[in-house]
Amino acid sequence: MARVSQAHLDARRRQILDAAALCFARNGFHATSMQDVLKEADLSAGAVYRYFRGKDELITAIVAEVLGVLRETYEGAAEEAPPPLPDVLITRALARMREVRPGLLEDGSWAFPRLVAQAWTEVGRNDELAVQVHTGYTAVRSAWMRVVESYKAAGLIDRSADADAMSRVMVALAQGFVAHLAALGPVPDGTLERGLRALMSMRDPRAR
Amino acid sequence: MARVSQAHLDARRRQILDAAALCFARNGFHATSMQDVLKEADLSAGAVYRYFRGKDELITAIVAEVLGVLRETYEGAAEEAPPPLPDVLITRALARMREVRPGLLEDGSWAFPRLVAQAWTEVGRNDELAVQVHTGYTAVRSAWMRVVESYKAAGLIDRSADADAMSRVMVALAQGFVAHLAALGPVPDGTLERGLRALMSMRDPRAR
Repeated sequence: MARVSQAHLDARRRQILDAAALCFARNGFHATSMQDVLKEADLSAGAVYRYFRGKDELITAIVAEVLGVLRETYEGAAEEAPPPLPDVLITRALARMREVRPGLLEDGSWAFPRLVAQAWTEVGRNDELAVQVHTGYTAVRSAWMRVVESYKAAGLIDRSADADAMSRVMVALAQGFVAHLAALGPVPDGTLERGLRALMSMRDPRAR
Repeated sequence: MARVSQAHLDARRRQILDAAALCFARNGFHATSMQDVLKEADLSAGAVYRYFRGKDELITAIVAEVLGVLRETYEGAAEEAPPPLPDVLITRALARMREVRPGLLEDGSWAFPRLVAQAWTEVGRNDELAVQVHTGYTAVRSAWMRVVESYKAAGLIDRSADADAMSRVMVALAQGFVAHLAALGPVPDGTLERGLRALMSMRDPRAR
């Protein structure tokens, strides 16, 4: 039997994950069957089950990948001196999300926002997923807190700024912007960056 | 037949809407039946159908109420000179949301975040709801743009700031924070306000 290259294995895994993600984005985790995934991927059961034993493993892999991309983006940024400002950084994180999964398209439009909306719903009824999301987001928030510490070191924000609360706001903003796209459709390029920059440009009379 | 007071009618309507919202938050719009709503409200079919002809009317009324509260909060703020700063205003909007529906509790915790998560999912498969949400959010964003204009008039933000993009960021942040609560559970009081204030306090070397 010919040896199969790692690149081939990776590509096949990517193909299956993208097919599953499209099914989940379309109908939700709950209403999607493994049959739906096989059909979407155009692969046999044997080919798919070699990689994933079932729907739960697919969900886990997809969520781990999404949270991993966010965490790595912010961890990388924390190492820069100074890190990119929040408007640039959050836009970079969403751009990475697109790059990682170029196949995640439904009728030519990005299916990721709908996938995320479905995931939030599922978290409410799937305890294992809830634990995974909670753990993953805690790691993402830790990375954001390190970014805030780097901002402090660079004199870009006061030492007294609440890094924990700010990390929640930044995580919520990325989530919310994706929800905005899911509910209201695409927006002009650069909208998130320009809007956040406007917000950050406000003069706060309370801050002397 | 005794005349029924408007207050009684309003209270009954509130009771039905809260029961429906709890069912939707728990199981989603799709999986909830009118029977579930009757049972949750502990009312007869006759009592409920007097107010709402079916599930679609319930969904429409709930979404209209949520978007209406947001719009009114921001429209009111735009009339103030100057309006409250974004951290105060967005916190006020979420507090109003709690006040409007004091009965929206599930096992003692606020069911609204899960209701919103379910609504986002449903928007993807319900065209009428999608149109309603799109129209409603456009009105909410218009109100936010008026707030930004008031900030400009008060010298709190540059005339050149992109009000459209900023309104999207503010709407997304409120959505995202609610999603954050739905996925990760309650956070300490004042988190959103402190986190947003930290973000706004950043020094932006690009801004002259």
